[in-house]
Amino acid sequence: MPLLVTGSIGIDTVKTTFGVSENCLGGSAVYFSYAASFFSPVRFVGVIGPDCPFELAKIFEGKDVDLAGLEVRENSKTFRWSGTYHDDMDNRTTDYLELNVLAEAPPKVPEQFSDSNFIFLANTAPKLQLELLEQIKEPVFVAADTMNCWIENNLAHLKLLLKRINCLILNEDEARLLACEKNLIKAGKSIIGMGPKYVLIKKGQAGSLLYSADGEMFILPAYPVENVMDPTGAGDSFAGGFMGYLAQKRTTDSKSLKEAIAYGTVTASFTIEGFSLNGLSSITKNDIDSRFDELKKMTSF
Amino acid sequence: MPLLVTGSIGIDTVKTTFGVSENCLGGSAVYFSYAASFFSPVRFVGVIGPDCPFELAKIFEGKDVDLAGLEVRENSKTFRWSGTYHDDMDNRTTDYLELNVLAEAPPKVPEQFSDSNFIFLANTAPKLQLELLEQIKEPVFVAADTMNCWIENNLAHLKLLLKRINCLILNEDEARLLACEKNLIKAGKSIIGMGPKYVLIKKGQAGSLLYSADGEMFILPAYPVENVMDPTGAGDSFAGGFMGYLAQKRTTDSKSLKEAIAYGTVTASFTIEGFSLNGLSSITKNDIDSRFDELKKMTSF
Repeated sequence: MPLLVTGSIGIDTVKTTFGVSENCLGGSAVYFSYAASFFSPVRFVGVIGPDCPFELAKIFEGKDVDLAGLEVRENSKTFRWSGTYHDDMDNRTTDYLELNVLAEAPPKVPEQFSDSNFIFLANTAPKLQLELLEQIKEPVFVAADTMNCWIENNLAHLKLLLKRINCLILNEDEARLLACEKNLIKAGKSIIGMGPKYVLIKKGQAGSLLYSADGEMFILPAYPVENVMDPTGAGDSFAGGFMGYLAQKRTTDSKSLKEAIAYGTVTASFTIEGFSLNGLSSITKNDIDSRFDELKKMTSF
Repeated sequence: MPLLVTGSIGIDTVKTTFGVSENCLGGSAVYFSYAASFFSPVRFVGVIGPDCPFELAKIFEGKDVDLAGLEVRENSKTFRWSGTYHDDMDNRTTDYLELNVLAEAPPKVPEQFSDSNFIFLANTAPKLQLELLEQIKEPVFVAADTMNCWIENNLAHLKLLLKRINCLILNEDEARLLACEKNLIKAGKSIIGMGPKYVLIKKGQAGSLLYSADGEMFILPAYPVENVMDPTGAGDSFAGGFMGYLAQKRTTDSKSLKEAIAYGTVTASFTIEGFSLNGLSSITKNDIDSRFDELKKMTSF
């Protein structure tokens, strides 16, 4: 089933203990699309300025990513972000953030994309996520990401969004903040009460948790990586593997959701082994399948 | 096969967001023995002073815990510890520590215990752990715990111990410190190089990891607990469930080790639901088996 993503394209500068990657390609829609394309065709919706030095058509060459939703907006500038990771590789400091084109009107969903069924609304203002979703005629499974600033400053719109989506994907601190609850299980339950049937909580190196409205819980550790070079894009690659697998299987039953989380987990494990898209662009679907099997073996008893 | 534990008996004062438990029963040997006794008979070796207000024979009534190795030392005082847990319930501050009898000569292993095969050397000075181990005639599977202060100040003795044991059980910060390595997978491998066939790393709410000398890795999340009242004793209960199950099965093959970690995990999940032994003393083996099955279901894909 057609999978659509709306999200950012960024010019990133990232510092980790392994080095610095200056002005490299980043952004949620980029990581998501590359990860999801191992499983399913992807429809890409995002906006850049004429200053963007990356040729996305070339980046996604050979991948089934439809860039009809990529807008180059005149008189605007591409989103820029710079961050420095702490030694634990889970926490980071933002050095600078230039929203630029992301602070303007969102891109339009092209007419030929409006019949998409699987939708991922990457992190942006909840009001924009709602507007983007309204352009989809028959959504089947909608997942959205969010972050602290929207929880703190746009809670009303976020709560409207939560009633319209099937799955909220967010990290553990965001889940605690949204639920006003320190215990993560209680937080998960509380967010389910706000609307979505599923809450998928990302815990970095500690893995992820899925809570379902029917009370089922699924817990998976992260795939163990020895050389974490750059965690940027891990969460969006996780979401890409997760949604890509579901779109490929055309179902969201309990078994498929668990497998999708495992595929998201191992896809993200490749992302963090290199800067920018280097970790993902050097692998094949076979590599992903091998780690999926390994993760299954490492967690079974 | 006979399971022996050497460790502390403590008078604990614990503060958490749920309240204060003053002068309650604690100590590594106490938590370990109670947890292990759900699976296997336990031989208890530890020392207290005449000031100890707890009647251990009564505490372990109905449990198969042989207290022949409990020494009440005249002119000494029982170990005391007080700690306050932070809101995350994984970190704590020690408010006071009185080693008392633990700073003196260790207890003797009674002659009738010297044929024990499964041995747990709870955290104490590595030199004392070595002395205790030397009193065992035919150890089959020896696990030991350690902590920061021994890694920092008694590394030579600790390294001798590591060549004599089969499994080191320690928390993630201790593993990083011992290996001088931030990445936990590399740290695990490095510790394997110091002698033990297995390293079992405890990650609190993030679960645990087992590294084997043959390169096999096993990762398990913690059992999700909604009401964590007091994490004290979680690590020793985990070790108790782990070693108790192995002693009961009389084997340490790969499958049994994984099941033992899962049993340790769920046994510890009961400990943290109450102060002191309250979480463990209110359950039956059936409750442990139910959570074992639940954990299996929650982590399978």
